[in-house]
Amino acid sequence: MFELLKTDDRSKARLGRLSTPHGVVDTPVFMSVGTQGSVKALDPRELREMGTQIILGNTYHLSIRPGMEIIEATGGLHRFINWPAPILTDSGGFQVFSLATIRKIQEHGVEFRSHLDGSLLFLGPREAMAIQRKLGSDIAMVFDDCPPHTSTPREMRAAVERTLRWAAECREQPRAEGQLVFGIVQGGTDAVLREACARRLVELQFDGYAIGGVSVGEPEPEMLRAVELTEAFLPAEKPRYAMGLGTPAQLVELVARGVDMFDCVLPTRVARNGTAFTRKGSISIKAGAYKSDFRPIEEGCDCFACRHFTRAYLRHLLNVGEILGLRMLSVHNTRMFLRVMEEVRAAIADGSFADYRREFAQNYVPTQKVLLARAAAADR
Amino acid sequence: MFELLKTDDRSKARLGRLSTPHGVVDTPVFMSVGTQGSVKALDPRELREMGTQIILGNTYHLSIRPGMEIIEATGGLHRFINWPAPILTDSGGFQVFSLATIRKIQEHGVEFRSHLDGSLLFLGPREAMAIQRKLGSDIAMVFDDCPPHTSTPREMRAAVERTLRWAAECREQPRAEGQLVFGIVQGGTDAVLREACARRLVELQFDGYAIGGVSVGEPEPEMLRAVELTEAFLPAEKPRYAMGLGTPAQLVELVARGVDMFDCVLPTRVARNGTAFTRKGSISIKAGAYKSDFRPIEEGCDCFACRHFTRAYLRHLLNVGEILGLRMLSVHNTRMFLRVMEEVRAAIADGSFADYRREFAQNYVPTQKVLLARAAAADR
Repeated sequence: MFELLKTDDRSKARLGRLSTPHGVVDTPVFMSVGTQGSVKALDPRELREMGTQIILGNTYHLSIRPGMEIIEATGGLHRFINWPAPILTDSGGFQVFSLATIRKIQEHGVEFRSHLDGSLLFLGPREAMAIQRKLGSDIAMVFDDCPPHTSTPREMRAAVERTLRWAAECREQPRAEGQLVFGIVQGGTDAVLREACARRLVELQFDGYAIGGVSVGEPEPEMLRAVELTEAFLPAEKPRYAMGLGTPAQLVELVARGVDMFDCVLPTRVARNGTAFTRKGSISIKAGAYKSDFRPIEEGCDCFACRHFTRAYLRHLLNVGEILGLRMLSVHNTRMFLRVMEEVRAAIADGSFADYRREFAQNYVPTQKVLLARAAAADR
Repeated sequence: MFELLKTDDRSKARLGRLSTPHGVVDTPVFMSVGTQGSVKALDPRELREMGTQIILGNTYHLSIRPGMEIIEATGGLHRFINWPAPILTDSGGFQVFSLATIRKIQEHGVEFRSHLDGSLLFLGPREAMAIQRKLGSDIAMVFDDCPPHTSTPREMRAAVERTLRWAAECREQPRAEGQLVFGIVQGGTDAVLREACARRLVELQFDGYAIGGVSVGEPEPEMLRAVELTEAFLPAEKPRYAMGLGTPAQLVELVARGVDMFDCVLPTRVARNGTAFTRKGSISIKAGAYKSDFRPIEEGCDCFACRHFTRAYLRHLLNVGEILGLRMLSVHNTRMFLRVMEEVRAAIADGSFADYRREFAQNYVPTQKVLLARAAAADR
């Protein structure tokens, strides 16, 4: 199922191949997020052309709209959205704990109100796995308790206990044919909790292990620490997936820490605000500086947007509210993330990953927020 | 410049070829509207794939944003938007009279306030032609006075007089190399005014003639009458363009009345509301009826949306606000208009246009609004 092809000499970076019912995924891999059955603003052809290997869907959102009846009637999520390649589905745990209004956390799941219409719903390990079985995703995630990073130690401990209990229950549910199931490690930045959670999940023998409880509002140094605290206890022969992360620079750093899989809404979300990712950091294409800039978003980029349009034109489109503007930034940003992963894989393969990592970090100017978090962490 | 290949035996339908600096256009033709330098939600590749021959740009909008300095610096509109095929630019007359707040109509143009920021601007025959020269469009339109259909006879007469004076002034302005210039006939539904305006414009010898003052809120019967009143006085050897029209059924009827060129925002505008055009009329894909409808928007349609997606999926996308939904409806609707024009051309060529027209009208269910207008006209 997962073949570890090579491990880097000077870091924990790994080159791998993950086999799923709908195809093989080369890792490290970036997975584009199609929460509601569409990677925002992009069509399947564009996704395939830019080298997308696998996309995400979401249990919580898809089960509310359009509802499982319709997706089942078409023969599963792949057919419903016309995406023939691998799909990973999140369990809905994160969404229940972040989007919905929780009414009651029970032994076997959560009673909550839909963020859309307030209707009373219930999601637990059984329900989440049943939905993912019907969706027919290639990789299903266990239903976890994902607390905010501001939770108390006591809350964090309770979340880990619940996550472990639910993971064991998920493990026993029927799956779609060939469907892989990944466990999710919680525990915040508590070393003891992370280790205990990871060890227990490994005992349960999942097909892969996700690092959850990151990308929940914590500063970058805490995120990196949470990953490191978890990775140490994950088996080398299984894929590791850091959930909801991150910027291109963070992805490269996380690969160096032994992570194989990533998903993030950033490429398409910031595109809709007019922000483009480049090797030098992110830039706001709407800025006056690009008014008469007839270069592509990024020199040397092979994406459709960079091959066809100038910054000046894209800036105009974004400023007058034309959909083509945010479409093209979504294309560029997604391709940029995929290309970085392609380069990362090539660098691991030929032994130059350490150089690649150093150069990438040197070129990439982080956002002010990331810089401030790093400075704060250094002061502590 | 314009080659009239064939005229239908049983109607005024014409088959033609219009040569422009950026290529030849087969008529009757539907032109997609790219007001601000983008056909809404579509990219140039999609447009070419679906058989788009020529698109529109707008003097008023483009001169305000991004401004002529930027477009000139890139070498014109074709290069700015990366569209290598023909472009027709509207003069801004319609926009000044419909969007802007007019401060003063003067001898040589209109002083008005921008609909965006209220800044004081001036547009007249000289300015409109100078902008269109800089845009480098293949076809420029004269700057006309386009009054609402509710205008008094006196206002209508004044608008025609002004339109004629300005047309003569436009005629004398320098053009881009090879740029064609079309006159615009005004006059509402007044037979005398339409004839006088058409005759005088024909004396001025333009490269083509547009029927303006339609698609300004008038009911369908008045629109058809305005076209008929004008067409009678236009020379057979020049292309005729009905501005801002219409539904697919109206396009077929207008072809039968001797019109060669059309532009309309309908295909992309209604797409953004979830409406799709079919041979049987328009349907709202958001409707509950399509919840579990796994057929394409229209059986037999060769557009990208119909080849890849079901109504059920598109309905879901539209209902959750995913951009792919309105993108795909824009693709379908635009292709539908283009395909009708392809069929119209083939039917004129092989002498079957009368049959095509009859069948099209039989199948196409007009909207309630069109039906009511027809009934009201029949009652009069």
